[in-house]
Amino acid sequence: MNRDPRYDILFEPVRIGPVTARNRFYQVPHCTGIGWTQPETLARLRGIKAEGGWAVVATEETEIHPTADCEPFHEGRLWDDRDIPAMALMADAVHEHGALAAIEIMHHGASVANWGTRLAPIGPSHRPIIYGYPVQARAVDKQDIRDLRRWHREAALRAKRAGFDIVYVYATHDLSIAQQFLERRKNDRTDEYGGSLENRARLLRELIEDTKDAVGDRCAVAVRFCADELMGDAGLTHDGEARDVVEMLAELPDLWDINISNWPNDSQTSRFAKEGFQEEYTRWVKQVTSKPVVGVGRFTSPDTMVSQIRRGILDFIGAARPSIADPFLPKKIEEGRIDEIRECIGCNMCVSSDYTQTNLRCTQNPTMGEEWRRGWHPEIIAPKKSDGSVLVVGAGPAGLEAALSAARRGFEVHLAEAGNELGGRVIRESRLPGLAEWVRVRDWRVTQLERMANVSVYRDSKLEAEHVLEFGARHVAVATGSTWRKDGVGRDSGFPVPGFDADNIYTPDDVMSGRDPDAGPVIIWDDDHYYMGGVLAELCRHAGHEVTIVTPAAMVSAWTVNTLESLPIAKRIARMGITVLPYTSVRSFGGGKALLANGLTGAETEVAAGALVTVTARLPSDGLYLDLQQVQNRWGDAGIATVTRIGDCWAPSTIQQAVYTGHKWARELDEAPEELLPRELPMIESGRVKVPS
Amino acid sequence: MNRDPRYDILFEPVRIGPVTARNRFYQVPHCTGIGWTQPETLARLRGIKAEGGWAVVATEETEIHPTADCEPFHEGRLWDDRDIPAMALMADAVHEHGALAAIEIMHHGASVANWGTRLAPIGPSHRPIIYGYPVQARAVDKQDIRDLRRWHREAALRAKRAGFDIVYVYATHDLSIAQQFLERRKNDRTDEYGGSLENRARLLRELIEDTKDAVGDRCAVAVRFCADELMGDAGLTHDGEARDVVEMLAELPDLWDINISNWPNDSQTSRFAKEGFQEEYTRWVKQVTSKPVVGVGRFTSPDTMVSQIRRGILDFIGAARPSIADPFLPKKIEEGRIDEIRECIGCNMCVSSDYTQTNLRCTQNPTMGEEWRRGWHPEIIAPKKSDGSVLVVGAGPAGLEAALSAARRGFEVHLAEAGNELGGRVIRESRLPGLAEWVRVRDWRVTQLERMANVSVYRDSKLEAEHVLEFGARHVAVATGSTWRKDGVGRDSGFPVPGFDADNIYTPDDVMSGRDPDAGPVIIWDDDHYYMGGVLAELCRHAGHEVTIVTPAAMVSAWTVNTLESLPIAKRIARMGITVLPYTSVRSFGGGKALLANGLTGAETEVAAGALVTVTARLPSDGLYLDLQQVQNRWGDAGIATVTRIGDCWAPSTIQQAVYTGHKWARELDEAPEELLPRELPMIESGRVKVPS
Repeated sequence: MNRDPRYDILFEPVRIGPVTARNRFYQVPHCTGIGWTQPETLARLRGIKAEGGWAVVATEETEIHPTADCEPFHEGRLWDDRDIPAMALMADAVHEHGALAAIEIMHHGASVANWGTRLAPIGPSHRPIIYGYPVQARAVDKQDIRDLRRWHREAALRAKRAGFDIVYVYATHDLSIAQQFLERRKNDRTDEYGGSLENRARLLRELIEDTKDAVGDRCAVAVRFCADELMGDAGLTHDGEARDVVEMLAELPDLWDINISNWPNDSQTSRFAKEGFQEEYTRWVKQVTSKPVVGVGRFTSPDTMVSQIRRGILDFIGAARPSIADPFLPKKIEEGRIDEIRECIGCNMCVSSDYTQTNLRCTQNPTMGEEWRRGWHPEIIAPKKSDGSVLVVGAGPAGLEAALSAARRGFEVHLAEAGNELGGRVIRESRLPGLAEWVRVRDWRVTQLERMANVSVYRDSKLEAEHVLEFGARHVAVATGSTWRKDGVGRDSGFPVPGFDADNIYTPDDVMSGRDPDAGPVIIWDDDHYYMGGVLAELCRHAGHEVTIVTPAAMVSAWTVNTLESLPIAKRIARMGITVLPYTSVRSFGGGKALLANGLTGAETEVAAGALVTVTARLPSDGLYLDLQQVQNRWGDAGIATVTRIGDCWAPSTIQQAVYTGHKWARELDEAPEELLPRELPMIESGRVKVPS
Repeated sequence: MNRDPRYDILFEPVRIGPVTARNRFYQVPHCTGIGWTQPETLARLRGIKAEGGWAVVATEETEIHPTADCEPFHEGRLWDDRDIPAMALMADAVHEHGALAAIEIMHHGASVANWGTRLAPIGPSHRPIIYGYPVQARAVDKQDIRDLRRWHREAALRAKRAGFDIVYVYATHDLSIAQQFLERRKNDRTDEYGGSLENRARLLRELIEDTKDAVGDRCAVAVRFCADELMGDAGLTHDGEARDVVEMLAELPDLWDINISNWPNDSQTSRFAKEGFQEEYTRWVKQVTSKPVVGVGRFTSPDTMVSQIRRGILDFIGAARPSIADPFLPKKIEEGRIDEIRECIGCNMCVSSDYTQTNLRCTQNPTMGEEWRRGWHPEIIAPKKSDGSVLVVGAGPAGLEAALSAARRGFEVHLAEAGNELGGRVIRESRLPGLAEWVRVRDWRVTQLERMANVSVYRDSKLEAEHVLEFGARHVAVATGSTWRKDGVGRDSGFPVPGFDADNIYTPDDVMSGRDPDAGPVIIWDDDHYYMGGVLAELCRHAGHEVTIVTPAAMVSAWTVNTLESLPIAKRIARMGITVLPYTSVRSFGGGKALLANGLTGAETEVAAGALVTVTARLPSDGLYLDLQQVQNRWGDAGIATVTRIGDCWAPSTIQQAVYTGHKWARELDEAPEELLPRELPMIESGRVKVPS
């Protein structure tokens, strides 16, 4: 197909100082949970983005010195020359596909504890570091500033040697010392680096000048900068000091990469912000500089992108999450394959990888983070090596992905869904407050499936074991999902909770099927700790009920600290007038009351409760699978070779994991069973290793 | 010196199945934050323990399969043969010093999310995993159990090939699938692995039998088991099912390694439990088995140890934390050097290393975790290479350690303390509720210093710059500590808080110097998040005040989640009747009131407050250092070569970090400045690396 001419503007080359980007698609620096710990994994991941058409592919934060030690987070490292080979591996992989490689070198200043290197953090003034470690940054003196500038310069030179084309100076997210110097609240210096904005901006100016001087002959110098900190006058604002800084340094760097600070503000989930949400804070930048401007806003719509360019808001479409959900987003626009774009749903499972220091993952893109160890490619899947049709039972996220991936491999695919809608839990959950964009998990898969000639979809088709036997597909995937438990069994109690068999106990499934807990004050019993308890509380509150969340955790939706949502959720819950009782368990329910136990004091109290929504755990809906196991002796005659559980039917987990297991099943359909995956192990240098046989 | 004969019993060899331990000192398995990620670092660390006289030195938890993936935690790995070299490195290092090497192979079952490997966790029944990840373990079937037994057996064989002498079967801390099968609350199976205790213990029995069968010819098989879960009938109890299990399997393993479960119960800090605290739960074990029994209880007193043996409680003195604080504890008892034992203070900074996935650290032992990369040894320090005396100003933890280590190097050391007591913050803080054992940081150092002929200590000697110049020491360490800020500046506010200049605003220093905030209801403003806010709240409550803790965090003492104290602290605070206002900031103070702002709703409220204790941040007491900088031109004439800040005067941090910087200063006194430390980097196998010059 050909590209729609109205998107031509997105494919204009843009000059950035001494280098030229082939188009306007710019993968801004983003974390991966991988960093320096797995160079091969990371190089392959970034290389695929270049292959997918991004003009610029950047690293994550890259530490320039042991006093900028992010441990336990896995970021990039360029402490000394020993780190060059790993970084060069990535730059090479990006160049292989014609993109520019950018590197975000930085000093973290007062944002890291240096817990690994045990060195004192540094900052403009004496302040505790921003995370809760019992550690303070010390105020730097003039010699420290000279050292810092030297480290930055040396790192820039190493970056150039490693082959990078664009070298960053980083001043956003409240993570960089250059920004900390700008912040009045963190800089109470009385020398020429404190006081006036010009003084507070001195370090940033010097770092830009140093970097241009060191590598500007061959490398572009980009500044990543915060347009607003969303904290009013205590921070930098888009109509105040942030703008003043850009005006002051407007023509100094070769490119401005703009966002809002801190990271939770920048990477808001779709529950809290929509595509293009940063525009109101960033639109002025192009008015004050002639240099190209990159901006972000979880852009996935080419029309929105064109609008940003045409209206003079941005020169480059910056993207982190959209490039994770679809590394081939630019190529698909370029080739007129708009409806093939796998749009980011804004769930921040990707962010959870950085927070848990594990390979990057994505709900929409199951190949993300598996490019090296499993050899997966987001757009390429091996053709089938054997004959026989495939039956997928259940069209939730696992079933849809399994069916699609098997079809892409060339199998004849039959997808049977018990209900009349495709999407399973994705449909139900996307109707909950704030989760509408999650429906993209279904939409993309259904759109692709509908275009494939080798796929048959059967709605309203609840299959029993006999049907499956009659059907006689060679491979059967059972993707029948899971149901929420009603009995209260979960983490807090391994035993059923007395009274939970009552009619006015509701599971999330009940509520999602439209049963309204309208019998009086509602208790949400949240022993799950991800989003479900919180969104059901919102739903019940919207319905006008008095709502109390009871949870054994210290906070509501505790696990969402990993998706940057913990504080926004707590704020929304509080502002809606929903009460939260932390450190509390439900002991029993009945007679219009719930018996609660305080986990700290042990005290028990009764509270009025007309209804209780129990959010504890799920049980796989594996009846069909177990029935099929019972008749395994008849599989041969029926032509069935394999029957496999996938998704929540295998083990209840996230939507991301459901998609992942569906994809994996299809990849492995006629492959030898997984043996030893490659792993990136530490070198053992001592030569002292003798392994007795 | 010779050993006191009453300790002879500690040095009897003890047979463990096919192997013999040279004495009764047994380093039980413990985490290090290092695990598989840094084999050289770990081998050196463990080898030094063997050198220090421990008869058995064990690994940490060692994963046997990708479905037992602890990421992001750094534990041991024995997934396949590729892991053998790293494990062999450790076994060799332990053997080099005549100790037995033990390995705790295990499957984590429903305690891990497998967030790195993306495989479904497994457990006896469908249950959410114990940490808050949105992931469930799936109930295993018979084939899964056969696979699990095979993985365990294969791991045991690999462990034997790697050279280990003792191979564990692990069933405690609620971290192992073998224990999860035992737990009624997690096992609702209806087959022969569920129901009766005999059935629930079947897997544990099989794993022991398998391991004996696989490696029992040459390796002892140990069982690490929980005597109690401290949750009453919902768990295993020492007078119930835990005892029944040991009775059932009494003679099957070669050794029982007993503790209480879970990890926070097992590794309680000195704030909550004293030496030998586990005895009440574990003393029955030796009555029901003839096999040797290991037990723990943060033992540092040889008399307590002897008592445990003589009274028939234990055969081996198990230790994790005491072996970290003093790897040479056995040797010191053996050689009659009791007063040289560096006793664990029970602060759990070691645990924080595992929680933050960084090299093991210890408040008492600054060399811990630095054995490989810095080449530090806990008992050996290089003799001085230059002449000249040393002046240490300030006898807090940094100053004491600096003086002692410089003295051990042979320098003539002068230690000047402004007050009349040595110990600095350690003295003051050890008088706070629950922190009494922390005084060991001072006691050990002062005891050692007093025995050294080359050390002069001056009390009541507050030095000014002129005094230091007159003194004319070649090297000056300024260890003058820090003071808590009164102005409210910290994380929550970078600006002084209005009204904090009032007399009834107290800093922790004020309270520790005996100023009682007795003017009415007391607010503790905790923007620090480690222990100080909580212990001061306890102190004020003990004094009879009405106390409210106000904190912008979601919970009290939030960082203590890293020291396993977060829940015990919250419980103690609640039970003492102290109110906690989370997500709340102090906006101003005055007129007997504090203006509070809710961080979720933004709502402001006034509360009565007769006094406010502000715990936000500290400022280095670096006046002397800065004064000396002003007269740097006079150093030469005075004979001064270097003036260095150490400890909190350099950057306010933990006591552990103060000791560490003091030690480092002494090590580096006349060494070339630190250049490139060795690092354990990942192998790059592809050979694709081309670094342009």
